[in-house]
Amino acid sequence: MSVDAASLLIKVRAQAPVVHHLTNWVTIYDCANIVKAFGASPVMAHAPEEVEEMAGIASALVLNIGTLTVDFIESMKLAAASANKRGIPVVLDVCGAGATRLRDEKSFELLNERRIDIIKGNASEVARIAGKGVSTRGVDSGEVRHNLIEVAIDLARQRACTVVVTGEADIVSNGRDTYLVKNGHALMAAVVGTGCMAASAIGTFAAVERDYVKAAAAGLACYEIAAELAAVTAAGPGTFKERLFDEVYKLLPQTVAERQRIEPV
Amino acid sequence: MSVDAASLLIKVRAQAPVVHHLTNWVTIYDCANIVKAFGASPVMAHAPEEVEEMAGIASALVLNIGTLTVDFIESMKLAAASANKRGIPVVLDVCGAGATRLRDEKSFELLNERRIDIIKGNASEVARIAGKGVSTRGVDSGEVRHNLIEVAIDLARQRACTVVVTGEADIVSNGRDTYLVKNGHALMAAVVGTGCMAASAIGTFAAVERDYVKAAAAGLACYEIAAELAAVTAAGPGTFKERLFDEVYKLLPQTVAERQRIEPV
Amino acid sequence: MSVDAASLLIKVRAQAPVVHHLTNWVTIYDCANIVKAFGASPVMAHAPEEVEEMAGIASALVLNIGTLTVDFIESMKLAAASANKRGIPVVLDVCGAGATRLRDEKSFELLNERRIDIIKGNASEVARIAGKGVSTRGVDSGEVRHNLIEVAIDLARQRACTVVVTGEADIVSNGRDTYLVKNGHALMAAVVGTGCMAASAIGTFAAVERDYVKAAAAGLACYEIAAELAAVTAAGPGTFKERLFDEVYKLLPQTVAERQRIEPV
Repeated sequence: MSVDAASLLIKVRAQAPVVHHLTNWVTIYDCANIVKAFGASPVMAHAPEEVEEMAGIASALVLNIGTLTVDFIESMKLAAASANKRGIPVVLDVCGAGATRLRDEKSFELLNERRIDIIKGNASEVARIAGKGVSTRGVDSGEVRHNLIEVAIDLARQRACTVVVTGEADIVSNGRDTYLVKNGHALMAAVVGTGCMAASAIGTFAAVERDYVKAAAAGLACYEIAAELAAVTAAGPGTFKERLFDEVYKLLPQTVAERQRIEPV
Repeated sequence: MSVDAASLLIKVRAQAPVVHHLTNWVTIYDCANIVKAFGASPVMAHAPEEVEEMAGIASALVLNIGTLTVDFIESMKLAAASANKRGIPVVLDVCGAGATRLRDEKSFELLNERRIDIIKGNASEVARIAGKGVSTRGVDSGEVRHNLIEVAIDLARQRACTVVVTGEADIVSNGRDTYLVKNGHALMAAVVGTGCMAASAIGTFAAVERDYVKAAAAGLACYEIAAELAAVTAAGPGTFKERLFDEVYKLLPQTVAERQRIEPV
Repeated sequence: MSVDAASLLIKVRAQAPVVHHLTNWVTIYDCANIVKAFGASPVMAHAPEEVEEMAGIASALVLNIGTLTVDFIESMKLAAASANKRGIPVVLDVCGAGATRLRDEKSFELLNERRIDIIKGNASEVARIAGKGVSTRGVDSGEVRHNLIEVAIDLARQRACTVVVTGEADIVSNGRDTYLVKNGHALMAAVVGTGCMAASAIGTFAAVERDYVKAAAAGLACYEIAAELAAVTAAGPGTFKERLFDEVYKLLPQTVAERQRIEPV
C-alpha cells in the first residue's frame, strides 16, 4: 500500500501525457507551466466545438471552477463526457465552492452528471461539497467544523471517487486507502496559484497511474518537495514561485524517494 | 492631514480583507497576487449569476476595463450595485480610456450609473475621463495638455470621489485633500501590470480605511516602496517583478515610515 | 540579402510601435510583456465593438488561436479587416492547428478571408496549414513527414505571405528569400509561452520593417539571443523566463550583431 512517488515521476517524464485543462483565468498560465515543468504536455481549450475532440487526445482532464461562467461549465460537461467515454481521469478543483450559490450548484451538477474521478479542494471547499456546514471567506480560507479525514473518506465513498483535501498535511482518500501527504512549505500559502497547480500535478500523475489515490499522493508529494527545495533559496513569494518551476523541472527521483512524506492513515 | 501608511499596512495584514476583482485578463494573476502579497485575500469572479453575492462577502471591489466586453461591463455593474448597497469602496481603473469609443462610453456608464469611490488612471486616461482634450497612444502613454493636479481636483469634485493619477509622482485627491506620492522606481514603467496592481493595492487599503484619499496614498506608497526595494537587486524588468512580490510580502512598517514620500499639495 | 537585426532592434526602440493582440488567455501576459520589454507598446483588446478602432491605432496586429472560440475568431476577422485596410502587418500564430477540426477550420477561414502577412507555427502546425499529412499531439509537438523548408517555401508562395516555422533552427521564408535562424536555447522548449512570445516579437519587428521576412528573422534572432543570455544564469525554466524579460530589455545592438545566426538558405 506504499506509494512510490519517484517511480511515477519517472513514468510522467517517459510518457509525457497530454493534460487537457478547462481551468480558471487567473492561474491558467501556472497550470500549464507546472504540467510542462513535470515533462508532460498541457493543452488548454474550452470552445464547445472542440473540447470533446481535445479531451479525446488527452490522457487526463483537469477542471477548475475558479472563474466559472454558465457557458464554461457547459464546455466542462462536454469535455468530461468525452473523458468519461474514454476512461481517462477527470480531476475537479472545486475552487471557491461555498463562496456563492453558483459555485455550489455547478460543482454538484458536474459531480452528478459526469464521472469525476478526483475531487480536489481545500478544507472548506471539500466540506461544502460533502454537505457539511462550514463558513467560507474568499477562496483560500474557512473554518472546518468536522473531522477532515472523516469528511474526505465519507465523500470518497459517497461519490465513489478519490478526494484530495489540501492543507498543511494533504488528505488523499478513495474511501478505502487514505494517505496524508506531509510535504510542502508555508510559502505556498503566500502565492496565488499553488492550489490550482496542485490539481494540475494530480492530473498529470493520474494520467500515468490508474490507482488515483496513489497518483494524487505522488503528484502532491513531488510538487511539494519541489516547493520545499524552492523555498531554500527564495527571498519571498515572488522568487519562490519561479524557483518552484525550476525545482519541478530538475526534480530527481532519488530526491523524491528520500524526501517523500506520504503516510497511510 | 498626514498619512500614516505604515499603520494602514499593519491594518491590512491584521484584517486580511477580501478584495473582489473584475479585472482584465492580461494582468489578472498579478492583481490577485499583489493583494495576497499584502496579506489580504483576492477573489476574482465575473459571472453575472454570482458577482453580487461575491461582492457581498468582500470588503472592496476593484474594476478594470483593460480587456472589457459589453457583457463584462454588465457584470461590473451588478457587482458595483452590490458594493454600493453595502457601502464598500469601489475602485475603477479606467485602463485604456481614450483609446476607443467603447472604453470611453463604458467608463462613463459605470461612473454615471454606479457610485465609484476611487477613479484611477494614468495622465491621459484621467484627462479623458475628466473631459479634457488629450491624445492617447496605446494604454500607457499620451500627452496631457492641462495641469494634471487641477484636472484631478476638478474631477474629484465633479464626481464627488477620490481621483488617482499615476505617474512619476502620483496625484491623489478627493477635491479637498490632495497628495503627491513620490515613491516608486523607473522599472515599474518597463513591466506590464504595474498600473493594474496599483489599483489593486489601492482597493486593498481602501478596504480597511474609509478616508479613501489616505487609503489610496498609503496603498500606493507601500506598493511603490516595495518597488524601490525590488529594484535594488533586480537585473531587469523580469526579475524586478518577482522581487516586487517578495518585497511587498516582507515590507516592514518601519521601512514604510522611513521611506514614505506622501506630500500634501 | 543579409539581415541586420541590430538596426531593427534600434528602430523598434526608437519608434515604440503599438502592437495590437488578440491572443490566447494562457500566455496573454507574456505576449504583452515581451513587446514592452522590447520597448514597444502592447495593447490587448478583443471586444467586437472596439477591435477595428484599436487596430486602427496600431502598427501591427498579432492573432493567436491558442484558446479560440467562434466569437473570438469573429473579433479577429474584424481586427484583421481594419489592419488590412491600413496595410499594417498581420501575424497569425496557428497555435494548436491540427489538434482539432475547429482549429483547422478557423485557421483556414482567417487565411482565406483576410490578408495574413505572416503565418507562424511549429513544424506540425505549419505542415497542417500547408495541407501536408502530419500527426499532432497537444500543441507543441508532432512529427513532420515532409521537408520542412520546402513546406515553408511552398506555403509562402501559395499564400503570398511570409511563413515562419519555429524549431531548433527557425525557418523564415516569403517564397523567394529564405533564412534559417539558429539562435535560441533548449530551455525555451521547457517553458509555456515561448512560442507565443516569438509571434509577438515578430509582430513587433514587422511593425517597423516592411520586408517581413527580414523583420521576422530579426525579431526571432533578437528574442532568441536574449534567451541564450538568460540561460547562462538561469537555474531552470522558472528563473529562465524572468531573465528572458531582463535580457530582452537590456539587449545591446552590438550583442545582437555579434551573436545573430541568420543564414540564407
